[in-house]
Amino acid sequence: MSAEETFTPIEWRDDALQLLDQRLLPQRQQWNRYRDVDAVARAITDLVVRGAPAIGIAAAYAAVLGCRQAAADALFDLDTALTRLAAARPTAVNLAWAVERQRAVLAAGGGEAELLAEARRIHRQDIDDCRAMGNRGAALIDPGSRVLTHCNAGALATGGYGTALGVIRSAWSQGRIARVYADETRPWQQGLRLTAWELARDGIDVRVVIEGAASSLMRAGLDWVIVGADRVCANGDVVNKIGTANLAILARHYGVRFMVVAPTSTLDADTPTGADVPIETRDSREILGNAHADDPRVLAWNPVFDVTEAGLVDALVTEKGVISNPDAGKIAAHLAAK
Amino acid sequence: MSAEETFTPIEWRDDALQLLDQRLLPQRQQWNRYRDVDAVARAITDLVVRGAPAIGIAAAYAAVLGCRQAAADALFDLDTALTRLAAARPTAVNLAWAVERQRAVLAAGGGEAELLAEARRIHRQDIDDCRAMGNRGAALIDPGSRVLTHCNAGALATGGYGTALGVIRSAWSQGRIARVYADETRPWQQGLRLTAWELARDGIDVRVVIEGAASSLMRAGLDWVIVGADRVCANGDVVNKIGTANLAILARHYGVRFMVVAPTSTLDADTPTGADVPIETRDSREILGNAHADDPRVLAWNPVFDVTEAGLVDALVTEKGVISNPDAGKIAAHLAAK
Repeated sequence: MSAEETFTPIEWRDDALQLLDQRLLPQRQQWNRYRDVDAVARAITDLVVRGAPAIGIAAAYAAVLGCRQAAADALFDLDTALTRLAAARPTAVNLAWAVERQRAVLAAGGGEAELLAEARRIHRQDIDDCRAMGNRGAALIDPGSRVLTHCNAGALATGGYGTALGVIRSAWSQGRIARVYADETRPWQQGLRLTAWELARDGIDVRVVIEGAASSLMRAGLDWVIVGADRVCANGDVVNKIGTANLAILARHYGVRFMVVAPTSTLDADTPTGADVPIETRDSREILGNAHADDPRVLAWNPVFDVTEAGLVDALVTEKGVISNPDAGKIAAHLAAK
Repeated sequence: MSAEETFTPIEWRDDALQLLDQRLLPQRQQWNRYRDVDAVARAITDLVVRGAPAIGIAAAYAAVLGCRQAAADALFDLDTALTRLAAARPTAVNLAWAVERQRAVLAAGGGEAELLAEARRIHRQDIDDCRAMGNRGAALIDPGSRVLTHCNAGALATGGYGTALGVIRSAWSQGRIARVYADETRPWQQGLRLTAWELARDGIDVRVVIEGAASSLMRAGLDWVIVGADRVCANGDVVNKIGTANLAILARHYGVRFMVVAPTSTLDADTPTGADVPIETRDSREILGNAHADDPRVLAWNPVFDVTEAGLVDALVTEKGVISNPDAGKIAAHLAAK
């Protein structure tokens, strides 16, 4: 944990992993306790913990639990447990990356203590990166600004502090932000449930809006849209939670600036454009609920990510710096720089 | 009722007004019975009946109830009851228009019978107008088109048949539409609940999408966005359910055409532009539900209509004809024509 206090949804305490159950927020703050690597894998699948960086950190700690289980039980196969862990969610690149980091520790002869040290390093580095992004992004925001964010790219999605919400935290503490609007973010309402909870907890002025209100909000006066990213393609196209592309197009129409905040680990030089990214489509019921349960004719189309064209992004903020109007050349140079 | 069968959410039966309680659809089809003008005003405020034309029709019948109450009770003040009725919701022009029509009947010496006849005329005219709009709008749509609609501008929002959904019904019956996408329309989910129910009931292929998916939908291929209107201003600005302006801007970005379907009674020559229309803002709880019930710091901003700039409208369809790229001159000429 950094010197300055930050909230984290992941804690290692009394030789066990504790995860804040994000499915229950904001009504209940319940910490679940894990001593079993497979139970953590299930928690990741079931969205107890979500957000690519947070999932990676939870998996790194889970490897410590697996190592201890293997030491206590000769029949426990750590290698296959780690394979199951890495497959708990298919789309989160950080998950596989974190498990690989821990496999390398094991390959070098490390045990429980070394795995725990590595998990703490991954966790600490993520928070430090978020703080670096926060300060870089905040510097772009004029005092008294009104900003809109989408979904939850906050402390709850990372090791702490957040990406988009990291920028908002930094800018708020510097007096640059007058008010934050949080998109509800259907169908899972991460904005309404998680972002509003996180910001209110820190005393930041927050108002929830439905996605449909974006145009009215921008017409009334908005300075920035600030979002995270699940993947940034080589050409600068941004893959993020469904609804993000709407905001980028509307922002351009109204002259509102659009900022994407993501660590360099999210920049994917191997994927040329957004058209090359397979978009996950989930079940109708996530949208419909029980509304048409007895009518098989009514279905929903439920893609969960969308693609924002690079040309609509005013600033891409990483822990290393700010890329204005990102394109393939600038992103390649950014990744190549120390 | 026209010769061809249509569904209506408003019925005058056994000397009382019956309204289909739209808050309960699609799970329950419950008809509420009204014999009190103030109870109808509350039903309008509480969204038992919604949609600008339907509200106007309900108010016209409510005036019959008020007249009867005044006849039975010397202390009952019909004039102030009609004023309360006209103020039950602020944004739609049809409510005030229908009450004015009934005040004119009263001013001409009319009583309960004349008011009922006028209400029936308003109701019947609305259905006839919807059919005329349906045919005019359908003619603009190429066979095999994919269309998106927002909120519910259907039989449920009118006297029957619908405005935007009237066009969709006509176009579907003519083989011009391959699939309809219905925006969920938060926070009341009129699209998910009402439009999907109405279209599935008529055997029309419908898929629900969240508002956030509009960009993805247009990117994948969409031909028309078709919406109703609560008010069209003298310059062609369109006031409609929150989220409409988003769709118009996104449609222009993707080269998708944008159609507004509204009777001439919705064209408001006395309101110069959208900036002159009072926009109803409703309670936070409609968006938040119980999510932050114990945290007074979390509020929502809940405007329920927005303004679409006239320049984003490709076609404005009324019962009298089609106005391409509407502006002040074309709208004035349209209203002046027989």
